[in-house]
Amino acid sequence: VAEQALIESIRRVLGAPGGRVVRWTGDDAAVVRSRPLAVTSIDTVAEGVHFTRSTHSPADIGHKALAVALSDLAAMGADAGEAYVSLALPGDLPEAAALELVEGLAALARDEHVTVAGGDVVGAASLVVTVSVTGWADREDQLVGRDGARAGDVVGVTGALGGSGAGLLALNGEAAGVAEDVVAAVVQRHRRPRALPATGRALARAGASAMIDVSDGPATDAAHLARSSGVRLELELEALPLHAGVKEVARAAGRDPVELAATAGEDYELLFTIAPGHWAELERSAGVAVTRLGRVVEGHGLVLLGLDGAPVSGLLGFEHH
Amino acid sequence: VAEQALIESIRRVLGAPGGRVVRWTGDDAAVVRSRPLAVTSIDTVAEGVHFTRSTHSPADIGHKALAVALSDLAAMGADAGEAYVSLALPGDLPEAAALELVEGLAALARDEHVTVAGGDVVGAASLVVTVSVTGWADREDQLVGRDGARAGDVVGVTGALGGSGAGLLALNGEAAGVAEDVVAAVVQRHRRPRALPATGRALARAGASAMIDVSDGPATDAAHLARSSGVRLELELEALPLHAGVKEVARAAGRDPVELAATAGEDYELLFTIAPGHWAELERSAGVAVTRLGRVVEGHGLVLLGLDGAPVSGLLGFEHH
Repeated sequence: VAEQALIESIRRVLGAPGGRVVRWTGDDAAVVRSRPLAVTSIDTVAEGVHFTRSTHSPADIGHKALAVALSDLAAMGADAGEAYVSLALPGDLPEAAALELVEGLAALARDEHVTVAGGDVVGAASLVVTVSVTGWADREDQLVGRDGARAGDVVGVTGALGGSGAGLLALNGEAAGVAEDVVAAVVQRHRRPRALPATGRALARAGASAMIDVSDGPATDAAHLARSSGVRLELELEALPLHAGVKEVARAAGRDPVELAATAGEDYELLFTIAPGHWAELERSAGVAVTRLGRVVEGHGLVLLGLDGAPVSGLLGFEHH
Repeated sequence: VAEQALIESIRRVLGAPGGRVVRWTGDDAAVVRSRPLAVTSIDTVAEGVHFTRSTHSPADIGHKALAVALSDLAAMGADAGEAYVSLALPGDLPEAAALELVEGLAALARDEHVTVAGGDVVGAASLVVTVSVTGWADREDQLVGRDGARAGDVVGVTGALGGSGAGLLALNGEAAGVAEDVVAAVVQRHRRPRALPATGRALARAGASAMIDVSDGPATDAAHLARSSGVRLELELEALPLHAGVKEVARAAGRDPVELAATAGEDYELLFTIAPGHWAELERSAGVAVTRLGRVVEGHGLVLLGLDGAPVSGLLGFEHH
């Protein structure tokens, strides 16, 4: 009965659905008018693994759950459409906190023009939030997979890296002596990852040949892309764009800032490949800063190059999550 | 890294995707060729709430997670399409058990011609399985909501009720003295709910005006349907079709079998309304047994009628889950 009341409150928080939605919450399933290609991803964030209730507010958790899922649509170049949200709620989570979680999620959904079209609320031993998102495209050539990188392409990345990892270090008390505003910025970066669907579409239109979101860190994610495409990626570690505050926090934590940026993950930037002749146009149309990280060559796997141009080992095999 | 290995194993279990699937597991998101209307539901089963690891095998859990989600598509009359599966796995669950869970889910997916097109695997404090399913339809009038019941319609239900509730009683040790084969049948009914997408489509084609799956028990679910449709449903308790074994287990547990069938839930049959003139055709074309439970009248809410034709109180407000 409590869950029914919570579901009614959630409906009020969500507001009106988008124009494509024919049937919405309150029926057995949502009904949406489709476009020719449905692009779908499901992602889960779990207490104690992706967040803790002491470091993340309920709204942070809701925001993060949706952002992580939308990031996958961004990496395909799809238009974000609808989200379906499952809340597994422990008995000690107050109903007000559950509503705050939904409000955090709904705020991001509004910003990204995503309709939360359905959901489920169940009891569980720990807090687990799963979001399934559906995006849309009209033609296959509008979408970008992980498998399209070709020898001769250049490798790029949006935005800056390592900020989320630095934020996590700070939340774990490893940023002693770092200025408060620097800490606040990286902590915010960790708590509130941005999803980049508009950027993903712009990169796809500009001719990106392959794309992946940087959830596990560029070292791991570039290796995924190399494997899917059947090519080798050579990335220059010194080219990695470091997020503001990464150097300071890394120094305080006794970590190498470049290694942190390469491996800590959860930055949710987009790593992509593109033919070199398209780079200038992509730089103009991306709408965000993009940085050249390296190149695609024949072969397989990922090679990280140090300052001296020689391969660096010891960073690979690191998987976040 | 362990999760990556598990994901590879899961891919092998899943086999080849359906013909509509353009991109599959291994990219950031799945891509599916759509039909005009996407019908989507998300459902979660959680350890300690919907199952326990002592009463349900991993394969039971996987089967149940998908069946519960597919049941919502059945209740809309949609063609089942793809499933997206999130596994939140506690550290003490062996990898072999996680694979068995996926195998149980994949076996049902094969039976129902559903492609498991994507998923996520994360760590968590307890076992939580979320399935998002997408079905498809070509026109709105092929789908049946909860809101179409009209005064004058009759109310029907597929199959038999109370079996799952009796199975749960038996699993809780409340079926002392009941014959072993009777117990085994209701326990199986509880552990392995059937999803009825083909039946749902047949009822929709035969002219069902409203439909809902019986997840919380017909008392609660009929009340949902009455509210959505803005009508009153009058159901005769004695008309409820009891599953084999319900009387025996209810007697052993000191429970009323009709109340058990009305309120225990998790039978995943379909409760529907239809104009009386279409009943005979529906009975012929449903492909399963259907039972007339009562009628739709002007008003609101649900009235349960006892043997004497007088309203029975005390059963309502009961919500399963």
